[in-house]
Order: sequence, then C-alpha cells, then structure tokens
Amino acid sequence: MSLWETYIRDVEPYVPGEQPGGENIIKLNTNENPYPPAPGVEKALRDMDPALFCKYPDPSAGILVEALADCYRQPRERIFVGVGSDDVLAMAFLTFFNSKKPVLFPDVTYSFYPVWARLFGIPYETPALDEEFRIKPEDYKRENGGIVFPNPNAPTGLFLPLSHVEDIVKANRDSVVIVDEAYIDFGGRSALPLIDRYPNLLVVQTFSKSRSMAGMRVGFAVGQEELIRALGNVKYSYNSYTMNMPSIVLGTEAVKDEAYFRETRRRIMNTREKAKTKLARMGFSCTDSMTNFLFITHPKVKAAELFEALRQRQIYVRYFQAPRLDSHLRVTVGTDEEMEVLYDFLESYLDRL
Amino acid sequence: MSLWETYIRDVEPYVPGEQPGGENIIKLNTNENPYPPAPGVEKALRDMDPALFCKYPDPSAGILVEALADCYRQPRERIFVGVGSDDVLAMAFLTFFNSKKPVLFPDVTYSFYPVWARLFGIPYETPALDEEFRIKPEDYKRENGGIVFPNPNAPTGLFLPLSHVEDIVKANRDSVVIVDEAYIDFGGRSALPLIDRYPNLLVVQTFSKSRSMAGMRVGFAVGQEELIRALGNVKYSYNSYTMNMPSIVLGTEAVKDEAYFRETRRRIMNTREKAKTKLARMGFSCTDSMTNFLFITHPKVKAAELFEALRQRQIYVRYFQAPRLDSHLRVTVGTDEEMEVLYDFLESYLDRL
Repeated sequence: MSLWETYIRDVEPYVPGEQPGGENIIKLNTNENPYPPAPGVEKALRDMDPALFCKYPDPSAGILVEALADCYRQPRERIFVGVGSDDVLAMAFLTFFNSKKPVLFPDVTYSFYPVWARLFGIPYETPALDEEFRIKPEDYKRENGGIVFPNPNAPTGLFLPLSHVEDIVKANRDSVVIVDEAYIDFGGRSALPLIDRYPNLLVVQTFSKSRSMAGMRVGFAVGQEELIRALGNVKYSYNSYTMNMPSIVLGTEAVKDEAYFRETRRRIMNTREKAKTKLARMGFSCTDSMTNFLFITHPKVKAAELFEALRQRQIYVRYFQAPRLDSHLRVTVGTDEEMEVLYDFLESYLDRL
Repeated sequence: MSLWETYIRDVEPYVPGEQPGGENIIKLNTNENPYPPAPGVEKALRDMDPALFCKYPDPSAGILVEALADCYRQPRERIFVGVGSDDVLAMAFLTFFNSKKPVLFPDVTYSFYPVWARLFGIPYETPALDEEFRIKPEDYKRENGGIVFPNPNAPTGLFLPLSHVEDIVKANRDSVVIVDEAYIDFGGRSALPLIDRYPNLLVVQTFSKSRSMAGMRVGFAVGQEELIRALGNVKYSYNSYTMNMPSIVLGTEAVKDEAYFRETRRRIMNTREKAKTKLARMGFSCTDSMTNFLFITHPKVKAAELFEALRQRQIYVRYFQAPRLDSHLRVTVGTDEEMEVLYDFLESYLDRL
C-alpha cells in the first residue's frame, strides 16, 4: 500500500436508492413527485438560449433567491440556495457543527446525517425515537454541538407539532438547530414563522418533492441573516457557481406558480389519505404520514419478502435493512393509477398467503 | 455573541470575478469561451422532456461518463464528474489531502487552492514561481501531503512541459499529484497519457472553457481506478445527485462533437496568437500564453488605472491586487470583433499618455 492511500478520507459510501430504468415500471422508491413541474418550467425551457451556456451563471442565483423571498415573504438576505437540500444540509454541517460536542439527531431518520457527520469528522449521538416512532423533545435538552431533524421525519412520515419544534429551538440557544423540512408541504406546519424569533434556527427545504424538480437539484435554507451569511461564505469558499443556469432559471419558474403548487400537493395528499384507508382495510399498519410516502407494516408479511415480490412485478418501493425498520416498507405516493396497480398486487399477494 | 456563533467555520470568503450584466459590454474577465456550445447541445435542449424533471437524475451520470470515456479513450472506471472543476477539485482536496504534512502549490496560481485548503483545515506551502513566472519542478521534491498545480498555470498562461510534469509526479509517489488542466485544450499537452504509469496522478479538466459550458457546471477528473473510487465514495457521502439532468444530458452532447470542439479551439488560438503580435506592437509584454487568456503588462501603464479605464468603456478584464500580479492584467481571448474593440481602445489610451 502506498503512503498516499493511507491519507484517503475514510468514508462509508452512501448507497442511493435504486434508479431502475425501463418502461412499465412503477417507481415508488425515492419519494419523487409523480406530476410534472409547473407549466412555466416547460415554457422557460423552450425559451432557453443555449448560446448563454458559454457564460458563467449568476453566482448569487439572484432571480431564484428573489422568487423564494417573494414566495415565503422573507427578505432576500435570509435565503440560501444549493444543489438540492443535500448540498444545503452538507454545507450547513460543515459551516455550523464545529464544536467538539456531539451533534444530536434521531436514531431513525434521514440516512445522510450520520454520513455527513463521518465525512466531516463531527461527533454525534442519536437519541432513540419512542415506541411509536416519535421524536421526544426532552432528548434534545442536553449539551450538544448542534441539532438536526427532519420534520416530518423520514422514513416514518410523522410530523412533530410546531410547539415541540419551538421547544427544542428555544432550549438550545447555544446551538444551531436545523429543521429539515423536505416533506413539509404535504400537510405539516413549517417552522418558517419561528425564524423571526430565533437566530439559531435554520429551516431547509427542497424542490425535489412538492415542486417536482428532483432532476434539477434545487434546495434552499431560510434563517436569520447571520446564519445565511455564514453559509454563503462557506459556499463561496467551496465553489462560487454551484447552481447551473437551468437550475436557476427553471427553479425560479417552479416557485412562481402558487396555484399549480397547491393543486399538486392537494392531489398527492388526497391519494395518500385514500391509501391509508385502503391499506388499513388490507390489514397494514400505517403511520399517520404527513409526507408523500407511507411507512407500512403488516403482521402476516415479511417486509423483505414483500419488497422482493413487488420488485419482481416492477413495483419499486424502499426496504431498510436496519433495526426497528426492517419490518416496514416505505412506499412513495404515486398517481392514483399507480396506486391502484399497487393495491391490486397487494390484495392478491395477501390472498396467496 | 452567542456560543453557536463561535463554532461557525472560519473562512475567508472567496470573491468571484464580477458578472456584469447589460447590453454592449465586452466581457473578458472570467475566461469564458465566446462561442456557443456544440450544435448538439441546442438540439438536446429542444428535445428535453420537462416531465422527467420530477425524477432524480442518474447519480452516476452514466451517459456523460461514457461519452468522456469514449472521447479520451479511457475506461469508465477512470472517470469522475462533478459540478464544474471547482467541485471536482474541492472534493479531491477533501478526499486526498488528509495527512498533516503541507500540500504544495505555486505562490502565483489559481486563487481557489488556498481557499479550499483553509476551508478543510489543510496545511499548505507555496513555492515561488521563478522570475519569469515559471514553476520550478525542483521545488516539488520535498516532503509534502499532496501537490496541485494548473497546467497551463493561471493567471500566467504558461505551460509546463510534460517532461517536467512527469518529473514531479515521479518524484512524489507517496503523494497524490493533481494536475488542473482547465486550459489544456488551447495548445498544451495533457498529462492524460501519464495516467497508465502513475497511480498517484489525477488530471482534472472542465467544460467551462474549451467546451463553452461554463453555465452548465461540468468538470471531470481522470485517474487510475483507486483514485476515482475514493473520489466517488466522498461524493456519495456528500450528495448522491450532484449533477442535474440538464448538465448530464447537455454535457454529453458537448463532448460528442469532436469536429466542433477542434474548430472552436482553433479559432480561439488564432485570435490569441494575433493578439500577442498586436499587443507586442503596442509595447505590451505578454507571457507566451497557451490558454484562452493573455497576461499582459506595459512599462508606461499602471495596470489598476488601465483596468478602470477599460471598465468605464464597458470592457471588463481582470486585475489582481496581489504582489507580483498587480502590474498585470488578465484578458480573456474573445471573438475577433471583441478584440478589435479592445485594440482600438488600447491604442487611443496609449496615445493619450
């Protein structure tokens, strides 16, 4: 082994959810939105001048920041944009979690948190969710170097009431508290209104779910000016031009169409609530998800086996081989038509047991 | 000051080159290509289906990697892609420069190297270029934690002969040596053929210059499999989906058109060589640039004043307020038409002195 090999950063590579290709597959494994982005996105795509690609994009992504500021009624100085919320969150870890004290996040949560912590050498502890997969706010009232949790949480889909979120933020004025709201638009209440009161609160959201733009890689953070300035400084130290021209221009259009946004969310929430009823009738237990996915288990079914059977039928869902999770499946809410195919399959699968 | 503020990562924010807007400006300040990308890029843009934006992009950017592998006659396993070469280089710093020994790069070079080193807490030393702004290979034959230099170097434009590059790589088998070839396509000789022989060599290139795709943010690294696997592991630990769908699809088209690529390079090199003659006639000294920019100085002219005068005339070039550089200007090679406007201005400016 050469000496240089010993200096390679020691990471445990994250394995992203399968991206199966081909026709006729039903892809319910990565929590994508089944509907296309707002019509303005297509129009802007058609109008795009490829000759402009030879110039660098606006490093401040000005029009996108402006559109978000308008949409969320916040000053521009409170908004930071990045290459998906993963980029925003990773930069937030790098920017804010530099004490030697452990950062806290739930034991069952977004699988990237421990990956980023290890990447940047950040110590962490993972308080356990309660027996019903709920975050216990009292677990986040001890010394720490920062706090991060998704709300709603993943892969449970459960929403922590805003009063509990505030409770955690208030009890940790010495730490930056990141609330990762990737799924907030599907029925939860955002922590954005708390930002006025708490300079230590950073709220992160994404265009990948409610705005149907997973393929464009756009995420953003909202917080008081000092947090956003610090994030910007780290971003400019890393790569001035993280957002490419299409993501800035098309992302802006995805934000502007409020009516389309509401309608898409409504459709997904309707399908989700119907799915809860339907699956309960088949004997599945299902958390009260406030997201665009369902977290389900069935007393008669081995999750790993059902996962495989679905896969054979070209229906892709997510199975986590991990303690507390391996009896469940995470199923993205697709279109009504996709869900009907799923129900039909599940009914005949259960019949055959 | 709150406690959390003391844990914010201490960075000196990088200030990117000005991105002036408006009509009639001549933008020769950020080394962009004045020509549009290959015609296939426009075609792929027109054919793009916005409904696909709701799905995540291919995390491996397969078609782009394939196109690069074909273009450079390398196996796919030797290619890593990222959000511009800045993203690729920053990830390479994070991946490979983890010894406690100082990383070496020239004192006059790409201004992001010290910024990344500070961002990730990497110690570094900066051997001085010689009096003619040349890299001295013997300076890179001492103990180090890694080596990085651009070839050709920036902002000098000077190319280090491949035998000297090999000399440095060969003398440092215990370190990863990164050759940053952002400008290699304008007349230099790439270190790519050395990769077969040196497992410690990483060559980084970009689509921002010779492929007219600065706005799309695409860069790549080529190296033996172990280096590329290590980079991939860090990338997957940071953000699985760094490249968005347009950058993958349109980037692929920018690589495929070899004839267009050759023609664009040829035009820029022609314009550059004419510019060298023209500027020399006006009394400018100009390094023998092998890039798409010129590094010029004039005995009768204060660089800062000329910079300002050009700016008033809406001609943007780059001025570096730094030791050894502050008597020079860096001027991107534009179209012949843009350069004529520049020459006219310079002639009348010199006449008025």
